[in-house]
Amino acid sequence: MENSPQKVNLAEKFSQFSDYWSPRIVGELNGQQVKLAKFMGPFEWHHHQHEDEFFLVVKGEFEMHLRDKVVVLQPGEFMIVPRGVEHRPVANQEAEVLMFEPASTVNTGNLRDSKRTKTNLEHL
Amino acid sequence: MENSPQKVNLAEKFSQFSDYWSPRIVGELNGQQVKLAKFMGPFEWHHHQHEDEFFLVVKGEFEMHLRDKVVVLQPGEFMIVPRGVEHRPVANQEAEVLMFEPASTVNTGNLRDSKRTKTNLEHL
Repeated sequence: MENSPQKVNLAEKFSQFSDYWSPRIVGELNGQQVKLAKFMGPFEWHHHQHEDEFFLVVKGEFEMHLRDKVVVLQPGEFMIVPRGVEHRPVANQEAEVLMFEPASTVNTGNLRDSKRTKTNLEHL
Repeated sequence: MENSPQKVNLAEKFSQFSDYWSPRIVGELNGQQVKLAKFMGPFEWHHHQHEDEFFLVVKGEFEMHLRDKVVVLQPGEFMIVPRGVEHRPVANQEAEVLMFEPASTVNTGNLRDSKRTKTNLEHL
């Protein structure tokens, strides 16, 4: 690993994996991580007690279900889900999503023993 | 301002301003800010003592000049410039750039009295 900063091409990173709901780490800064994930189908309702989450659609689209509404996110659109807010991403087609969140964030939030819980994320 | 999270459309936000090197705040999370800026022409060499910076090109392209190389960043590409690393963005055409950085970050870093220094950034 060089010390000099390298650029990261999102499409190139997304081409390196195909599984859904399994975030990869592609950058770290200020205690936060930049993660990429592919969404497909419905995820689980959850919240994060101490972490706000940022979701930016790079390709495809998904619905962010909140308790009071559903927001459709398309390429070039982002949403910040504040800590404590229950949410459920649902992708009716494959979506490529960039996330920005604290290094401590677990994908399923309060559901620590979900079969979808991912820890020890791969760095790409 | 509603409490329920809203989505943000990057193109719509970029359409709201036209000046260069003047970041707007479009989101906040975990003590970090999401900023949008338009780059055009050369900026100044600077570094940030305590803050790592993330730059993602949304439209156009720019060169990130580092002391050891120049990296051309195009749409869908990002670079993290770690704290302490001198850098100088240079845009040979207009570039629309999304940045993540701590709320404390000043655009000109160590150059606090540059005529380009922006404080009290506008929220869009």
